[in-house]
Amino acid sequence: ELLVLTYGALVAQLCKDYEKDEDVNTCLDRMGYGIGVRLIDDFLARSAVRKCRSYSETADMIAQVAFKMYLGVTPSVSCSSAAGNEFSLILDKNPLVDFVEELPAERASLCYCNLLCGVIRGALEMVHLAAEVTFLQDRLKGDAVTEIGITFLRKAED
Amino acid sequence: ELLVLTYGALVAQLCKDYEKDEDVNTCLDRMGYGIGVRLIDDFLARSAVRKCRSYSETADMIAQVAFKMYLGVTPSVSCSSAAGNEFSLILDKNPLVDFVEELPAERASLCYCNLLCGVIRGALEMVHLAAEVTFLQDRLKGDAVTEIGITFLRKAED
Repeated sequence: ELLVLTYGALVAQLCKDYEKDEDVNTCLDRMGYGIGVRLIDDFLARSAVRKCRSYSETADMIAQVAFKMYLGVTPSVSCSSAAGNEFSLILDKNPLVDFVEELPAERASLCYCNLLCGVIRGALEMVHLAAEVTFLQDRLKGDAVTEIGITFLRKAED
Repeated sequence: ELLVLTYGALVAQLCKDYEKDEDVNTCLDRMGYGIGVRLIDDFLARSAVRKCRSYSETADMIAQVAFKMYLGVTPSVSCSSAAGNEFSLILDKNPLVDFVEELPAERASLCYCNLLCGVIRGALEMVHLAAEVTFLQDRLKGDAVTEIGITFLRKAED
């Protein structure tokens, strides 16, 4: 809960700093990237997982090990492209929004949890996987679930 | 670690927003207060502790139960006034600074962890205890330990 409230303070500060939701979203993603780049070492050390052999294994690892470790929840994973490089993490419950009832009307475009996208992107980059990570659905915006889309772009050189 | 890195992002953002360290410190304390006011419910629910009968018991509770629960460390507690209303929490290790090597020269007056003071102050106020909470020593500033001073001001009406 200290994380959830500290994160709330961070988002509130950025909303004070930036008038446009897009700028807040970009800033959260950029901060998340910086966090992911550093968090990956902690993750690899604590999880002691072996190297993933496929995008699908990687997506499962993010959902079942990383989300569990840092947020205490396990999203379900679905593959959403025939090419096998697009995945969705679907969260029935997002602990980061525990204290947020709904977004204020003037912040309708805010991706409140956009930090998470940056964290995933940064962490993947450190294991040589380029990816685009974005929110596809968000319960805070009235969607039935919260869905994070991960598109693996290419396997970079090892 | 996600908390530690998210907190780091928050402090970095405030340092961008405010030129003067004092303003960053004030802002962190204020944010912490808002967090403490909300965190106390979570703390009481999860810890299921009984009501403290003295300032000394309260200080022990903060150190042994609350710090342990939210930061995973247990500061030692000492009483530093004959009146029995001033206490020090002494941290050999402060997990919130895990990724901070030292403060940059131009940020020499920054109380990096000042949020914690606000959290304690806010949480105490919600159980009707007014207190002043400040950093007395900080390893980030070259002190041997990190010391948080709590001065109970009066017992407010129940």
